[in-house]
Order: sequence, then structure tokens, then C-alpha cells
Amino acid sequence: MAINVVALAGGVGGAKLALGLMHALGPDAGRLTVIVNVGDDFEHYGFYVCTDLDTVMYTLAGIADPLKGWGLPDDTGHTLDMLRQYGETIWFYLGDRDLATHILRTMRHRAGARLTDITADLCGRLGIKSRVLPVTDARVSTLVDTVEMGTLGFQEYFVRERWAPTVTRLRYKGAESARLTPEVEAALDRADLIVFCPSNPVLSIDPVLAVGDMRARLAASRARRAAVSPIVQGMALKGPAAKLMAEMGIEVTPVGVAAHYDGLLDGFVLDVQDAAHAPRIRELGLDPLVTDTVMKTDEDKRRLAEEILMWSDGKNKDL
Amino acid sequence: MAINVVALAGGVGGAKLALGLMHALGPDAGRLTVIVNVGDDFEHYGFYVCTDLDTVMYTLAGIADPLKGWGLPDDTGHTLDMLRQYGETIWFYLGDRDLATHILRTMRHRAGARLTDITADLCGRLGIKSRVLPVTDARVSTLVDTVEMGTLGFQEYFVRERWAPTVTRLRYKGAESARLTPEVEAALDRADLIVFCPSNPVLSIDPVLAVGDMRARLAASRARRAAVSPIVQGMALKGPAAKLMAEMGIEVTPVGVAAHYDGLLDGFVLDVQDAAHAPRIRELGLDPLVTDTVMKTDEDKRRLAEEILMWSDGKNKDL
Repeated sequence: MAINVVALAGGVGGAKLALGLMHALGPDAGRLTVIVNVGDDFEHYGFYVCTDLDTVMYTLAGIADPLKGWGLPDDTGHTLDMLRQYGETIWFYLGDRDLATHILRTMRHRAGARLTDITADLCGRLGIKSRVLPVTDARVSTLVDTVEMGTLGFQEYFVRERWAPTVTRLRYKGAESARLTPEVEAALDRADLIVFCPSNPVLSIDPVLAVGDMRARLAASRARRAAVSPIVQGMALKGPAAKLMAEMGIEVTPVGVAAHYDGLLDGFVLDVQDAAHAPRIRELGLDPLVTDTVMKTDEDKRRLAEEILMWSDGKNKDL
Repeated sequence: MAINVVALAGGVGGAKLALGLMHALGPDAGRLTVIVNVGDDFEHYGFYVCTDLDTVMYTLAGIADPLKGWGLPDDTGHTLDMLRQYGETIWFYLGDRDLATHILRTMRHRAGARLTDITADLCGRLGIKSRVLPVTDARVSTLVDTVEMGTLGFQEYFVRERWAPTVTRLRYKGAESARLTPEVEAALDRADLIVFCPSNPVLSIDPVLAVGDMRARLAASRARRAAVSPIVQGMALKGPAAKLMAEMGIEVTPVGVAAHYDGLLDGFVLDVQDAAHAPRIRELGLDPLVTDTVMKTDEDKRRLAEEILMWSDGKNKDL
């Protein structure tokens, strides 16, 4: 199917569907562009750490830890052990092999390279055929306002505090003044299908949507636009999506997710276990696809991606 | 013996005697200041790497690799493995545990801290009771002019090319305009005994002597000043000292070393195997100490240090 596909993705959940799309496109894998959240990026021990970009990159390269979904398999923590010996308190895991990625990125970034070019270089070295783009080269930082601890940086909230604090508000610092890269704009212009991956809507997708004129471009896009629900049976498949949505007053169902993306979608993919919600998805003016959305194996990922591609086929507005 | 001792040191050989001096001073270990060469320092993969400072620091902390003399024992190279997977050519070893040191130093240096303060902090965290001082906070870079490959950076010459090229000249870039730190000046002012460790005279000690007014201060010092020969039986105990001295027209004997430090010494320590050279040492106006200078065990290091302290005792100019 020679269509141009854009996937909007955060970390593990998004990377799974991105991998499925890459495999489903087969020899046309080069027509897939994954636009990735940078709101989780932070500087740690002097390294420029981009957790979502790394997860997508490792996943597409076939080298991600298959159990955790992030990081590299069987990675060791010897550098961290020595930092502990120096008296440091370690709350963020930096595997020894994983460090190589942070080293190369940080070095090139300090030399003035754009995150887009650095990411393209790293992906090329790992043999990835699809395109992985940070949504912007500017720094965007997700800030988490909490009841118990005030404002936390994303990784402080997510990793250090294990998303325990109650969230009152999320802010995407720098997003408004940030600009989409020319590469992201071109990918959106070219796209026949734009897929919102089943990433956390408020932590992973919203900071992508908040950058520059992303929302306006998506709203005006000629491409078919579909989101995949990260909520199944009222629960997140992974991470704090359900907890956060509840805290922020969003209905913890596929309908809540679909309504959250109001004005940006044509279709919505929900799990068979949530089939009862399909009529309400239609009421929102969206075309529902009810299927098995739980991706455990690589085959699951590919099958879901193929279903989405076939469902979209012939429904593109220009076709 | 409540005297203030300064040791001038490069890497492995210097660190050995520094450790001996620290042990020999016992409860007065705080009276030892080791002034360390920074000409080998370089930036690598974005890290501020100070090989001689690290070797001295690890040695005095009792955590240096006992076989190699540098680095940490049983260190792994997993970060380097991943860098190789990214297609990098690795020629300089950075162990995973060792990286922690480079990470902490680089982070603080980028934040504007002086190398002197960073080193004091790291040494403090490792429980070192003696003082370890970089000779300067400025950057000094040893450059190696060679017949075969033109000018090489020190680590390119020493590690990448395994000191194979023929050296025509050594330069210590930045040394003249660099200033001794106030801490180094104070240590020199306070010193009763200044020991030139058996480090490479041209690669390790000369770049220390080249900084600011170091030579003038040593020449005018009220302290007793003694060097320990790194050459025994016409050979270097470790590394390229003999090869380099020959290439630079320096006699490869204790006498050649002693003459090289012309005007800066009162005494000279040479190995029993070179006892025949003692009269020529005397002819240079220096007081020779002939003893076993080969340090294999920690006991060897302590014994040599104790001999030097006892030999110096009562010979201090002010006493």
C-alpha cells in the first residue's frame, strides 16, 4: 500500500504500534514517519536524555528490551554503581549500553546539531528504514503540578515519584513558542494517514499537539486521521493514563479519549472489549474501528497496523 | 614526622610513590600534597578526562586496578560496546565504572567549577586524606611532534599510537600563560620536602614544571627538593620514558634525569642497580640516595617513601 503514514507517538505504547506500522508497510517502510514527543526529555548528569525518542528508536531497530519495552536488554548499571560509591542518590536508571546513546546525542547537541539531525544519524546507524522525528528541535518540558509536591519535572513525577502524586494540571513549557521542524511539516503535508498511537493522551500526545501550529495543521489536514485508544476496559494497558485522566476530569473510556482529541480525528480505534462504546464514538462524528488492540507480540502489532491501514484504505479524503 | 611534603606526579609511577608517602606519613597524611600533571587531559566523547588525576585519586583511595595501575579493577566496557554498535571506532578505553568519574567532573566543570575544587570534592567522597591538586585550573595540552605522523595530541600518541612514532619535540600548549593555583602556591610555600616522583620526566613532570612560574618557585624554594629516578638500568620501569629520552637526546640514566632537572634539586634517589652512577650525581652537586626504588607492593612504596623522609630529615635548609 503506497501511502504515506504519520504516527504520533510517545514511549512504549506508541513505539509498539509504530513498529507494527513499519512491518505492515514492508518494502514501503520508508513511507512511515514517526513524530515523537519531546516533553519527557531532560538533562541528567549532563546528558541530553530523550526517553521517548530512544524507546521508539530502539523498538524500530529491534533492540529494545522486550520485557520493559524501553532501554536495552540485559543492560548493566555499573556506571550508576560507581556514582552511588561517590555518594550520589540514583533515581533514574541509565544503563551502561544505553549511555552510549546519551553520549553521542549530547556530544553532537553541544556541537550545535539539531535534535532532528542527531536522531536521523542515530537511527541510520541502527539501520532503521522508517523516519523518526522529534516534533520540534526546541526544548519542550512537561511540568506536572501536583497536590502533594507542587510542580515536578516530568521524570521526577514519572520515575522518581512513580506517578503517585495527584495531578492538578499539566503544562508543556516552551511548547507554544516552539516550532514544528520543516521535516515534521513536510511529513504532515505528505501524509495520507495520520495515526495517533495508543500513547498516554495527556503525557505523550498532548505535548506533541501543543507544539507551534500542530493542532491547526492536523485540523486542516487532507489526511485521514485516526487515534487508537490507550484505554481498554477503563484501564491503561501500561502506565498512568487512567489515573491521570481521572485526576484531570477526563472520562476513562475510549469515548473520553476520542472527545479529548475533539476536532482532530476522522476515525477511532477501540478494543473489542469496549465495543459497547462504538455508538458513542459515532455520535462524536467519528468512524469507529472495533478490533483487538492489545499488542503483546510483534505479530499483534503488525496485525493491528494492517487492520488500520486496510480500514483507512479508500477512505482517504483525496482518494 | 610532622613535615609538609609535596609530591610532583604524573600517572602510574607517580601515584605509587604518592601512595607510599601517604602511608609513610600515617596520621600526618593530611600534610601530603600531590601536585599532578594535567597535560594528558583531553575531551573525549564530551567528557573532561584527566588521566593522571584519576590515577593518583584512584591509587590514594585504594581502588585503582592493582595490575594496570590505572582505572578501576574488573571494570566493564559495555558503554564502549554500544558505541561500537553505533559504528564508532574505539581507541581509548573508558570503563563503565570509570565513566562515573568523568560524568561528575564534566558536569561540575560545565557548571563553572574549578578543576581544583572538583578534584577536592571527588577525593573527599572517596575518603582520601591527602591533598590532590591539579597544577593549574587552566587547560594545558601536551602536543607531540613526531617524524611519522606530524603533531599528535598526547592521548593519540600515547594510547592510539602506543608511543610508536618517533618524537622530535614536546610542547605544553597553554602552559606558559597558565597560572599555578593559589592552592599549589600555598603548598609549595609550606613545603619542607618536595619530591619529584619517578614519573616520565618529559611527559609527566616537564608539563608540571612548564606551568606559570613553577620552575622559578622550585628553584627558589626553601624546601629540600629531591627527584626519584624513573630510569633503572637504562630502562623505564613502565611506559615510554627511555624511548622518549633517547629520541630527545637525554642520556637514559639516572644522571640524564638528574641533569634534566638542573637547578631544581638538592638530592637525587637512584636504584641500587645504578649505584655506579652515584659519583656522577654528586658531581652535579646533588646528594644521592642509593636504594631499592622498584615499587611492586604497597610495602615497597611505603618503605621507599620512609627512606626518602628519613634521608631528608635534618637536611631541610631551615632546620
